[in-house]
Amino acid sequence: MPRNKLRPPAEKIVLPKGFRAGGVHCGIKKRGLDLALVASDEPASVAGVFTKSTVVGAPVELSRDRLPRRTGRGVVVNSGISNVGMGARGRRAAASMARSAAQTLGCDEEDVLVASTGVIGEPLPIEKIRAALPRLAESLTPERLDRAARAILTTDTVPKWAEARTRIDGRWVRVAGIAKGSGMIEPNMATMLSFLFTDAAVSPRTLHAALREVADETYNRLTIDGEGSTSDTVLLFANGCAGNPPLRTSRSAGTRRFTRALHEVAEDLVRQLARDGEGATTLVTVNVSGAKNPEEADRAARRIANSLLVKTAIFGRDPNWGRILQTIGAGRVKLDAEKTEVRLCGVPVYKGGRSTGPAARKKAAKGLSEPEVAIDVRLGAGRSSARMFTCDLTTDYVRINAEYTT
Amino acid sequence: MPRNKLRPPAEKIVLPKGFRAGGVHCGIKKRGLDLALVASDEPASVAGVFTKSTVVGAPVELSRDRLPRRTGRGVVVNSGISNVGMGARGRRAAASMARSAAQTLGCDEEDVLVASTGVIGEPLPIEKIRAALPRLAESLTPERLDRAARAILTTDTVPKWAEARTRIDGRWVRVAGIAKGSGMIEPNMATMLSFLFTDAAVSPRTLHAALREVADETYNRLTIDGEGSTSDTVLLFANGCAGNPPLRTSRSAGTRRFTRALHEVAEDLVRQLARDGEGATTLVTVNVSGAKNPEEADRAARRIANSLLVKTAIFGRDPNWGRILQTIGAGRVKLDAEKTEVRLCGVPVYKGGRSTGPAARKKAAKGLSEPEVAIDVRLGAGRSSARMFTCDLTTDYVRINAEYTT
Repeated sequence: MPRNKLRPPAEKIVLPKGFRAGGVHCGIKKRGLDLALVASDEPASVAGVFTKSTVVGAPVELSRDRLPRRTGRGVVVNSGISNVGMGARGRRAAASMARSAAQTLGCDEEDVLVASTGVIGEPLPIEKIRAALPRLAESLTPERLDRAARAILTTDTVPKWAEARTRIDGRWVRVAGIAKGSGMIEPNMATMLSFLFTDAAVSPRTLHAALREVADETYNRLTIDGEGSTSDTVLLFANGCAGNPPLRTSRSAGTRRFTRALHEVAEDLVRQLARDGEGATTLVTVNVSGAKNPEEADRAARRIANSLLVKTAIFGRDPNWGRILQTIGAGRVKLDAEKTEVRLCGVPVYKGGRSTGPAARKKAAKGLSEPEVAIDVRLGAGRSSARMFTCDLTTDYVRINAEYTT
Repeated sequence: MPRNKLRPPAEKIVLPKGFRAGGVHCGIKKRGLDLALVASDEPASVAGVFTKSTVVGAPVELSRDRLPRRTGRGVVVNSGISNVGMGARGRRAAASMARSAAQTLGCDEEDVLVASTGVIGEPLPIEKIRAALPRLAESLTPERLDRAARAILTTDTVPKWAEARTRIDGRWVRVAGIAKGSGMIEPNMATMLSFLFTDAAVSPRTLHAALREVADETYNRLTIDGEGSTSDTVLLFANGCAGNPPLRTSRSAGTRRFTRALHEVAEDLVRQLARDGEGATTLVTVNVSGAKNPEEADRAARRIANSLLVKTAIFGRDPNWGRILQTIGAGRVKLDAEKTEVRLCGVPVYKGGRSTGPAARKKAAKGLSEPEVAIDVRLGAGRSSARMFTCDLTTDYVRINAEYTT
């Protein structure tokens, strides 16, 4: 079961109008890019969603505190050290990082947000970051969002970006985004960072509503290992440079189109994250339908997506419907065994209270050798459904996480 | 990080008075014992606790349905095939297995309970079981509970048994038990089977209360991989052959002593199960104290015990307090970072809002190389505490579960 090599989605990615980005090596990591900056030429509406953990990193505290302003000029992100668990010293470091970036951009310190990702419990080498920022600010260009995408990585094997465009009131608007995070990823925001940029004009309130809606259907449907992080952050900047009349209500046709484009980018990123989960060989989409109510649909889908036994079975290309039913049952989800159906890669393997036999099993096993697989479960207990994105659990996952800090 | 070889607790184990046990190879597995029978010479009080899953195997349905009688003569158990997911055919097989055992024991069919463990979704070869039962019944002996312990194993690497004795009203009474299960094990009863036998005289109601109390503190505190099973079963038989005046109330001094002996046997078995978790190298005891309330204490302890990142860190001998705090936080458990303390193998590694430094880290890493390790967390948010037993997560766990049915 060799790891299928992932490739970045394209050579490079151009930002929406009025944004510039860059990434440099400042020396937190031994090698590779480790400091990213993305800036808007104009003040932009900003929306964010963060980890729901009761233990959060200093960068999350700072960005969350600044977001009620709902406008901003940019975001500075480092990888290598997460700036978590460092108390007052960590808070000073996060503030200093934002201040230095604001100075190089010539904007208000409050207009810069920050994020950090990497090991927990080590001090951020803030002098290295400050020393590198002028060089980074000078290198910013509208054409290299990919450099920022590379500079935020930790254990990811490939950078991730995605884009979409749509027409709003006669103007083309673009949405582009990057993301990182291949471990410590669970349903409610993960050690996952994602930054989204659009040249659409959107009021802060409408932007926030669109982000919440999309995050609930995409980022919050992703699980690699059932672990939420102290640093999960998704930020969305909208600078209005596309020139559309500003979107001010959630119900307008323009906002719906914008939200669809945002959803497209976010789902694309989430699929890239799942596929590049630590040690993963397979992107798994879980669809549960026929649940008694939305809570049970959600619980069943999350249990399947987080089940070590299901995830190791996928790794082993084993069409093991027993483990799927077992984990649903252990989650105390109501199902009607006679009406329940399990499909793997479109092949029914359990139906009418029993296995559909060895031929179906063989066909399903073949489907499981593809790099993307689908688990579809109909419970026959009601009309609710839910979806999750995840990956398989492999010996490499354990190896990566047993050796991370040593 | 080589697997430390486990050994069975002793050469063999004698049953409490009035019980006989045996195990044979009947042909469900390719080789090795796969059919166990334990019988009481006298009618015994019986208590049981079962999986809380909404998907249960036919043997659990049968035993659970019979338990309101609260007396019984014995239990017959097979390994290799779990008799789960087989509909009406599975129910007929479970009933047939009990009936055949009752015939060989010369007792009422209703007085025999059953359990099965192994792969899901395959038919039980009931003819093989029926053919082997007369031979098995003939081989029963008071001296070989260990043969039954061996015959119920699936992926366990060693059989498990334990015993204790106590004096009640001038009579020595003994408690002996066996257990199996090294994967698909989670907090609320696991793919775990355990059978306990005592020669104490205990009324069915008092026996049930004692078992519930002990199970909540032992079996339900064990997690290998966060997965509950369709077949989890603990049965306790008390045949009164020790001759003590029957224990009829939960509050008597005799019942308290009996419950302590039962607890000793159950905890011993649970530690053996955790230590032999699939692929495990390390027994991990998690103690959380200072939680706001019992629910949060329990949630924090279970999160730590089920965290893939904590469990892979233990496998890597990495004193990673960051992952411990992160998983507690992701569980939305209240803590006071300044008052929180994390000890690994007795060494404080996080205190007063930060790391205690590299010397402590090194000392803790040394402790983590022992076969038994303790994670102690004080939250500083209240006075509630909780405990869990688990093991590390290793590359072998993934290998075993990716290759189980192939």
